[in-house]
Amino acid sequence: MKRKSQEGIAARGGARAALSSLSLAQGKRARLWRLLYAHGPANGTLMVLPLDQGLEHGPTDFFPNPPALDTTYQLRLALEGRYSAIALGIGLAEKYVHEHAGEIPLILKLNGKTNIADDAEATSPAFATVEDAVRLGADAVGYTVYVGSPRQETEIREYGKVRAECERLGMPLVVWAYPRGRDIEAKGGKGSLYAQDYAARVAEELGADVVKLHEPAPETGESPAPYRTLREDAQARLRRVVRSAGRVMVLFSGGVKNDDDAAVLRKVRLYMECGATGVMFGRNMWLRPMDEALALTRRVRALLQRHPR
Amino acid sequence: MKRKSQEGIAARGGARAALSSLSLAQGKRARLWRLLYAHGPANGTLMVLPLDQGLEHGPTDFFPNPPALDTTYQLRLALEGRYSAIALGIGLAEKYVHEHAGEIPLILKLNGKTNIADDAEATSPAFATVEDAVRLGADAVGYTVYVGSPRQETEIREYGKVRAECERLGMPLVVWAYPRGRDIEAKGGKGSLYAQDYAARVAEELGADVVKLHEPAPETGESPAPYRTLREDAQARLRRVVRSAGRVMVLFSGGVKNDDDAAVLRKVRLYMECGATGVMFGRNMWLRPMDEALALTRRVRALLQRHPR
Amino acid sequence: MKRKSQEGIAARGGARAALSSLSLAQGKRARLWRLLYAHGPANGTLMVLPLDQGLEHGPTDFFPNPPALDTTYQLRLALEGRYSAIALGIGLAEKYVHEHAGEIPLILKLNGKTNIADDAEATSPAFATVEDAVRLGADAVGYTVYVGSPRQETEIREYGKVRAECERLGMPLVVWAYPRGRDIEAKGGKGSLYAQDYAARVAEELGADVVKLHEPAPETGESPAPYRTLREDAQARLRRVVRSAGRVMVLFSGGVKNDDDAAVLRKVRLYMECGATGVMFGRNMWLRPMDEALALTRRVRALLQRHPR
Amino acid sequence: MKRKSQEGIAARGGARAALSSLSLAQGKRARLWRLLYAHGPANGTLMVLPLDQGLEHGPTDFFPNPPALDTTYQLRLALEGRYSAIALGIGLAEKYVHEHAGEIPLILKLNGKTNIADDAEATSPAFATVEDAVRLGADAVGYTVYVGSPRQETEIREYGKVRAECERLGMPLVVWAYPRGRDIEAKGGKGSLYAQDYAARVAEELGADVVKLHEPAPETGESPAPYRTLREDAQARLRRVVRSAGRVMVLFSGGVKNDDDAAVLRKVRLYMECGATGVMFGRNMWLRPMDEALALTRRVRALLQRHPR
Amino acid sequence: MKRKSQEGIAARGGARAALSSLSLAQGKRARLWRLLYAHGPANGTLMVLPLDQGLEHGPTDFFPNPPALDTTYQLRLALEGRYSAIALGIGLAEKYVHEHAGEIPLILKLNGKTNIADDAEATSPAFATVEDAVRLGADAVGYTVYVGSPRQETEIREYGKVRAECERLGMPLVVWAYPRGRDIEAKGGKGSLYAQDYAARVAEELGADVVKLHEPAPETGESPAPYRTLREDAQARLRRVVRSAGRVMVLFSGGVKNDDDAAVLRKVRLYMECGATGVMFGRNMWLRPMDEALALTRRVRALLQRHPR
Repeated sequence: MKRKSQEGIAARGGARAALSSLSLAQGKRARLWRLLYAHGPANGTLMVLPLDQGLEHGPTDFFPNPPALDTTYQLRLALEGRYSAIALGIGLAEKYVHEHAGEIPLILKLNGKTNIADDAEATSPAFATVEDAVRLGADAVGYTVYVGSPRQETEIREYGKVRAECERLGMPLVVWAYPRGRDIEAKGGKGSLYAQDYAARVAEELGADVVKLHEPAPETGESPAPYRTLREDAQARLRRVVRSAGRVMVLFSGGVKNDDDAAVLRKVRLYMECGATGVMFGRNMWLRPMDEALALTRRVRALLQRHPR
Repeated sequence: MKRKSQEGIAARGGARAALSSLSLAQGKRARLWRLLYAHGPANGTLMVLPLDQGLEHGPTDFFPNPPALDTTYQLRLALEGRYSAIALGIGLAEKYVHEHAGEIPLILKLNGKTNIADDAEATSPAFATVEDAVRLGADAVGYTVYVGSPRQETEIREYGKVRAECERLGMPLVVWAYPRGRDIEAKGGKGSLYAQDYAARVAEELGADVVKLHEPAPETGESPAPYRTLREDAQARLRRVVRSAGRVMVLFSGGVKNDDDAAVLRKVRLYMECGATGVMFGRNMWLRPMDEALALTRRVRALLQRHPR
Repeated sequence: MKRKSQEGIAARGGARAALSSLSLAQGKRARLWRLLYAHGPANGTLMVLPLDQGLEHGPTDFFPNPPALDTTYQLRLALEGRYSAIALGIGLAEKYVHEHAGEIPLILKLNGKTNIADDAEATSPAFATVEDAVRLGADAVGYTVYVGSPRQETEIREYGKVRAECERLGMPLVVWAYPRGRDIEAKGGKGSLYAQDYAARVAEELGADVVKLHEPAPETGESPAPYRTLREDAQARLRRVVRSAGRVMVLFSGGVKNDDDAAVLRKVRLYMECGATGVMFGRNMWLRPMDEALALTRRVRALLQRHPR
Repeated sequence: MKRKSQEGIAARGGARAALSSLSLAQGKRARLWRLLYAHGPANGTLMVLPLDQGLEHGPTDFFPNPPALDTTYQLRLALEGRYSAIALGIGLAEKYVHEHAGEIPLILKLNGKTNIADDAEATSPAFATVEDAVRLGADAVGYTVYVGSPRQETEIREYGKVRAECERLGMPLVVWAYPRGRDIEAKGGKGSLYAQDYAARVAEELGADVVKLHEPAPETGESPAPYRTLREDAQARLRRVVRSAGRVMVLFSGGVKNDDDAAVLRKVRLYMECGATGVMFGRNMWLRPMDEALALTRRVRALLQRHPR
Repeated sequence: MKRKSQEGIAARGGARAALSSLSLAQGKRARLWRLLYAHGPANGTLMVLPLDQGLEHGPTDFFPNPPALDTTYQLRLALEGRYSAIALGIGLAEKYVHEHAGEIPLILKLNGKTNIADDAEATSPAFATVEDAVRLGADAVGYTVYVGSPRQETEIREYGKVRAECERLGMPLVVWAYPRGRDIEAKGGKGSLYAQDYAARVAEELGADVVKLHEPAPETGESPAPYRTLREDAQARLRRVVRSAGRVMVLFSGGVKNDDDAAVLRKVRLYMECGATGVMFGRNMWLRPMDEALALTRRVRALLQRHPR
């Protein structure tokens, strides 16, 4: 049997690698190319504006910037800020995007839940399908997997059905890989390096194309070994989870709003230097007044443009 | 890429906006138009007569007005009172409406439950389908979602299947968005502004066309922040939930019967002034003697006619 | 729009009304006609002989009359007693009815359970289908719904699938509407007027064609208001539940065996005078020696013949 | 309407009755005939060799006779002992029977479980289908129903799907009707007359063709009335459960191994005299050395041949 | 009827027997042949390199050899080490194998879970399908069954669906038969001879083609009888579980890494002498530096080549 040299199996990751993969279905390649090279920074990085917080957290999240309660706010920001994509559930996608369809790529978020019940046994049911995404001209679907939840059986099984549909229809799959549930809380919490690192690997093994993660927190000693005794700085932690995601492109989330633009930009720079493919910042963008949001967006974009993939 | 001006993305809501949306399927538009402009006030507002209380609460609800136990009572009221639609489950829809089919639009309520068990883990199973609605010539389906219930996984997943069927068949979807379950009770109760405001947003993100809500109660300090410290008057609260519903048309429910006609009318006026698309009053209508019910109906209609949408 | 006069919406019920409904599918009308006018009293009343007690209660029920353990006993009684129909599960229907198929209408009971576990969370799974009923030439299917059970989600959802199949195949649906479970026990018990009245309404809202109920017991003060304080006699209670069933035809069950023929006949007379469409007596018939059972059957039939519907 | 005389509805049971039933599907008749008249005693009785104990109890069961761990042992016994059929799960059926297919009828056992968890909530999942049985040329399928288990909803519902498939494909259905679970234990235990008698009736009402039961134990006073006070001898108990099975053919199981051949034969004689159609003895056969097993098999067969059905 | 002689039913196992079985579907034979005779030792033994630990245990497992976090490491090892196959989940299979497809057989692992929640009620959901395996050109699928878990109903039922798909598509089925859950822990633990022996038999009865087991531990007296009192040496224990697997080919797992190459090789020799078809060692291979891993691989292969099947 003919064997390729070791060099032929070198590690690769990021956008260029993803697109050049021989195994990529044609439709998935077409859609990923649009996200990576036709919109946003258009250099293989991703700058996604998500808006599912109204379902996940309630209107509470919009109080700091009431105009953001109206989805036209985020749509305008996505369009004028020239994001790579806007991520919306079916309700917002159908009622707001139509007249701008084609101008801004859509990531249709398929599942979600409220935070009225606590997350001890979190599970995220789907209320839209990959076929809806095709019908709406979306360029990807988004799907939350609550990694390590006591309900992980449901989480993984339902994910598997969505993955199969993505395969069938050539639809890229962006996984919100969120450690969640009483067991992860007992092992150091959802924000720990252990939790985020595990989530990154789960996304890779489950077959995501892109994974949304949170920046891992410093270790507090409650994680399982060997994480418990790791004393890595932010950069090392970020590089670790990016490595654990393998060939899955990593987007870091912004989390709660930070009023300090410079701090936000430092985060983005840090993420990109550590190998991220991009960012998916919601509240840190659309909770700012429009001019400030657009200004910060421009600076984030400029930053991403310095990290072609 | 060509970008539309900011004005092109202005917020819009209500009937006119809904019907002018480019994304609206033709069948759904036809049915919504019938509800909004061919029946009832016929000015873009909605006056719906619901009758699912016999299933939801038992015959108990009919004791104050025994003739109302016979569905012909409500049907007569809907016809003579010229409502926009009557909302019925499959049993009543099949056994009572046929000889008046076409005269009064039907909203086929697909799911329901008894109140024999308490609502700590409320969930509402479907016993009819969107195809039943098509077969019966209905102009919309109704579907209850118990927002925030511990069973929200089932609630949302089953909702998603109904939504997809509505999409496939061009059927408008009216969501009874009801906060329910032990967790919402622990956070201030199902009637709070927090609860109703969240429910409104959930209906929008899940893709409802019309949402049925309750008027939010004054804050008692048991809700999560920032609601806990809000001190808004009734009008501000109503406007808030209407805003949170975005482009979903809001109907307010009447709840338990109020014997004071003037008070009922004040409520309707308040709801309409705060942006509601209409009302869905059941017991406040059909628990009145027929002549009184018709008289009140006429006054409600007159009021709605002053708020074209 | 043309409006029909109030008279056009008058209440109607019973067999004649059911058959004259414009909304009745042709196959369902044909089968109901056979049950109501070609067999049994043949005057729009129903006299059904049920036999599912062997599954529901075990062979225990046959001890008072051992020959009844052999289904040929009930089949002979049904044939010679000229019942409107015999109600059997698939096992008995397939193994005993064939050579008399056509002579006696069959109501195929689709679901059931043992009483080995208690009824705190009662639910009744189906083990046969509406297609089985069609294949066996049945004229209706029977389906138990445990009203108000903690498992009501399953009860109602599974019922809904059976209802849709009945619709598709033109098969009448007889609902055993049985209040059951720990919650109804905490509210006065399954036999109370509250429970039976609620069950009657549930059957109507869910879309039954015929409902099997128990005669409601006198109020003990444990039911919810307003039932708690009702002091109605047997006739008033029966009339109430018949009214709550609306256009669904009501059959009353016989319950445990009463050795006093005259008492049984008084019950039948009472039920018919209060608006019932008929009776479904099992143990009160087939636990009697054959000659006594046939004699009582003849007297019941004679009684029903005085109440044409 | 023409009525047949009472004689026309006489009770019948056993093989001849089963095969002469007008309602029997042609494929099911062909397969039952092979089992009853072409193999084994070939006189309408059944002598089935079951082998599912490795799954149900683990290799533990084979310790008394290690060669029996190899399925070729049971296959040789079935072939040389000329059994009516061998009952195997899909794994053994596919890996061992092929080269003898046609020589020995196969009953494909569709479901099973381990005994590692206790039986308080026993339920038996299927891992093969009726279509597998058709593909493998089986003459029947076997299916365990845990009668009265807290999981009886699942037990009965899943059974119903298998039954429908058997109907569709003309496949006889042998039900292992096993009382099981905490509720039956609280009512006198799975081996009681109450339990076995109920199980027999359940098998009949659910539509089995053949039922496997255990010989009921003497009453200990823990069963529900009226069983509690019955004082019947073994023969009366056996006749009772055979009667409760009605037209379903009854096979009695052998249970744990009895080293006394004469005792085993006395049991077989007793069962046949009490109306059984045959026996399904596993451990009592294949835990004996081959020559002893074959010798005992010959004596059992001789006994069955004295009871043509 | 013609009967074959006893010799015709002799026990057979291993690769040659599996391939010569008349019942083997053509596609399954083709794929098994490739695994057994075209790759790896190519003498009827199997040397499989598994990589699902990132999902099952998290990135933790890669800490001792960080390069192994990159799947190209295992792929290079599998290719250069000339393994019989590499076992991967869908994520790794799609993103890493493509350019070497055909060079190294793929076993697509269909299900998995994290170890964040404990294993008291372990169940392993599928996130890929047998059709995925066909699409990717895999030569087998892998599927974990948690033997004896309180969730065994789900485990067995879902397994059954995968088995049926394998049958339909001619795909060999490798079962990771893992005793797991609180009940097995209460009976001596997942590593006991009792547990592994039961798991081997379960794999056979459920219809696996190949089973992955762990070497059984010495008895500690906590297992059920008769295991409790067995005092067998390692060889006897291994031979026992291989016998219990019958005609299913047995692969032994390596478990946690052992730094002593000689000890690893002694294990392999022991397994092969006791009748194993091969080994599936992951961490014991890819946690070594590449040159050491390749060296050890060559020695394992040499050992397997001395045990043609």
